[in-house]
Amino acid sequence: MSLSAVLTRIDADLQSSLDRLFDLLRIPSISADPAYKADCARAADWLAAELTGIGFDTTVRPTPGHPMVVGHYTKAGPDKPHVLFYGHYDVQPVDPLELWDTPPFEPSIATMPNGTKRILARGAEDDKGQMMTFVEACRAYVAVTGALPLNVTILAEGEEESGSPSLVPFLEANKAELSKQVAMICDTDMWNRDTPAIACMLRGLVGEEFTISCADRDLHSGMFGGAALNPIHVLTKILAGLHDETGKVTLPGFYDGVIDIPADLRANWDNLGFDGAAFLKDVGLTAPAGEVDRTVLEKIWARPTCEVNGIVGGYAGDGFKTVLPAKATAKVSFRLVGKQDPVKLRAALRKYVKDSLPPSASVTFHEHGGSPAVQLPFDSRELAAARAALTEEWGKPAAITGSGGSIPIAGYFRHILGMDALMIGFGLPDDRIHSPNEKYELQSFHKGMRSWARILTALAG
Amino acid sequence: MSLSAVLTRIDADLQSSLDRLFDLLRIPSISADPAYKADCARAADWLAAELTGIGFDTTVRPTPGHPMVVGHYTKAGPDKPHVLFYGHYDVQPVDPLELWDTPPFEPSIATMPNGTKRILARGAEDDKGQMMTFVEACRAYVAVTGALPLNVTILAEGEEESGSPSLVPFLEANKAELSKQVAMICDTDMWNRDTPAIACMLRGLVGEEFTISCADRDLHSGMFGGAALNPIHVLTKILAGLHDETGKVTLPGFYDGVIDIPADLRANWDNLGFDGAAFLKDVGLTAPAGEVDRTVLEKIWARPTCEVNGIVGGYAGDGFKTVLPAKATAKVSFRLVGKQDPVKLRAALRKYVKDSLPPSASVTFHEHGGSPAVQLPFDSRELAAARAALTEEWGKPAAITGSGGSIPIAGYFRHILGMDALMIGFGLPDDRIHSPNEKYELQSFHKGMRSWARILTALAG
Repeated sequence: MSLSAVLTRIDADLQSSLDRLFDLLRIPSISADPAYKADCARAADWLAAELTGIGFDTTVRPTPGHPMVVGHYTKAGPDKPHVLFYGHYDVQPVDPLELWDTPPFEPSIATMPNGTKRILARGAEDDKGQMMTFVEACRAYVAVTGALPLNVTILAEGEEESGSPSLVPFLEANKAELSKQVAMICDTDMWNRDTPAIACMLRGLVGEEFTISCADRDLHSGMFGGAALNPIHVLTKILAGLHDETGKVTLPGFYDGVIDIPADLRANWDNLGFDGAAFLKDVGLTAPAGEVDRTVLEKIWARPTCEVNGIVGGYAGDGFKTVLPAKATAKVSFRLVGKQDPVKLRAALRKYVKDSLPPSASVTFHEHGGSPAVQLPFDSRELAAARAALTEEWGKPAAITGSGGSIPIAGYFRHILGMDALMIGFGLPDDRIHSPNEKYELQSFHKGMRSWARILTALAG
Repeated sequence: MSLSAVLTRIDADLQSSLDRLFDLLRIPSISADPAYKADCARAADWLAAELTGIGFDTTVRPTPGHPMVVGHYTKAGPDKPHVLFYGHYDVQPVDPLELWDTPPFEPSIATMPNGTKRILARGAEDDKGQMMTFVEACRAYVAVTGALPLNVTILAEGEEESGSPSLVPFLEANKAELSKQVAMICDTDMWNRDTPAIACMLRGLVGEEFTISCADRDLHSGMFGGAALNPIHVLTKILAGLHDETGKVTLPGFYDGVIDIPADLRANWDNLGFDGAAFLKDVGLTAPAGEVDRTVLEKIWARPTCEVNGIVGGYAGDGFKTVLPAKATAKVSFRLVGKQDPVKLRAALRKYVKDSLPPSASVTFHEHGGSPAVQLPFDSRELAAARAALTEEWGKPAAITGSGGSIPIAGYFRHILGMDALMIGFGLPDDRIHSPNEKYELQSFHKGMRSWARILTALAG
């Protein structure tokens, strides 16, 4: 069976794969710092040459910032699926340099007291190490079988660590070229050291700011207090009314489109051993907030929220001023799940606020963006295939996870290119990405390559 | 009857009284500006000389700032009442000078198109003109009758326009010398051009700041939102709960010590012609807030309030941050009336806040001062006497008013010297005190002197 041979090849070639990763790690492709512009270009060229060597039809595409690398492998033929893989070749800055135990762009292998090995360098995980697990899996596949089992397009960005300013325009301009059956993104963590994960639920976001105005100027609370409407009072009543005593959001229609997680996923989560109390205790909290009938994991992955992210009104500096202010402002955000509609929910919030205004109060609204949740259908064929492949490699059921932090690329793929994304990564929470002494477990690199080989096989169907 | 002769003397001597006022107005006694320190001393000496000339045993008393002038007149004898009069000889700065139509320290009389005359100068009203109405009334009284009808101590401060830093220590150090039966303060307005007023209700003030803390750091609202307690939510619920739907404050015991105004005072207020709707419309408000069963005038003069004067939490700058903040802060003040106890009410607020905290939230408090209301007893003999005297002079019932803005001196007299204060002034809201082109109606000066002659007679009993 060819998969078995591919896995054997990956094992045998581990040192060569590491050597190539080290070549890439030596290039200081810091996208945020203009001083490293040539290095970013060099990293793009290096990657393009590697992909070409494997058999990808590769181009380095200029953008107003750092270039995109796009490689197409279509030799599997039109009857095979075509998938898109996304990674990025740029890295975070390395300051403060004095906190690094080894030079950030001189990669090395360290052996820990327990015998595990780790790759040390800026980008070892994020995202050069993660990206190369896929590239090296493709290389092994082609070397052993003569071809990839399905068609693959690789898109590597060089601006992910500096806000991806060129990404959306590039996706818009190249929709036809980049829209495939499913996307795979290797830029996330495993559930833990032994348990792989597929992140397939990203909460959406609605941001809204509104200002309640009453008098046309700040008033003296002695001269007017008791008779003049205080916009902070109006605002706090409105905000306090957004949640009921069970932690549910009160806006009409707020839960429309929220999809309850299926029983098998709930069982998967229950078996993850997540300790909600410890998660909260770690940030100084002794009890969970929010909906009383949901677990912490469910709350942060699969439930919508309404949070006040900022509030200001009157005098907030040192000391005290007996001002009765003219206005007060709040910034409110919703995290969305399932098929919740950001447009409808913004309208519901605005209606509630307007309907809550007493005489003498008025409101102005300011929109701060809105995007729906990105959620892989729970019955997705690709999800099931990838999950089975990961479970096979790691000997433990892969976790199907949500992600709290935003991963904009998954939303772009969904909303610009019309395809779902499987976010599969082999990072660990202690990899110190964006910090000094970034590392990537050698096991993550090695079994990551093997995982991709299995997933490619599974997706080829 | 001697009062009649005194009034005749005041009328006859109006020009001389004006000349003396002009002498004082020519001294640029700007207390806030160190460049005018010698002028402040000169104004104090000038006043002391005048008081001595009238028969007061007068001293100019040094302080760390500008001196106090204290004059005692005790020739009325021990069987007569002894009253304290307070005024201040310092004035506000005059910037911007270019907005003055006449030089601020070159007093003049202007005749308006309707024939009324006004005194133009910095300090024409605040407080040189007002203070001199009393001094000149004393002068006429002594000139005509040979003596004042009661004992009088005059205290004139030179730092009122720069925060009165020396006043409290001076009162504390001279309690026995300055504690008299009642105080009179001439630094306030009439109700309107034709209606004199005695301000006898000053609301007290409690200032309290508190901070709700939840997590031990700011959290990402995507990573933690829905499971981690948001201190802004806690704070807004607490603040929203401070008032019920009728505008009443909900704190237990809040209305203890609130004294309902008597029927005759209510009738006096009803007859003042105050237009609550116009008062609010002037600052852009279309409807009154607060207690639904009280008039606007009652609300601002005779009812306690609870106002949030400041609130801040999370990200309040431009744009949007999806932060779930570690803490949120509010500044709350109460305006107190009657015998409400600031200590008890601060404790009630703190108890309510603590009792409202969900698990995972904590609170810290920061006190910002507290003082009870200053309220002349409605059945005060001095109030009745002064009111009758003013009504006689002006031909209209004197208004018994509250005051929204704080007049700290009345509280000091009450709490340090143990005496009530009658605040009787002849200013008008359009006198432009603290602004360019300050003025004092000649009628205010003239009838002010006559008013004091009548009040002195009435208080002598």
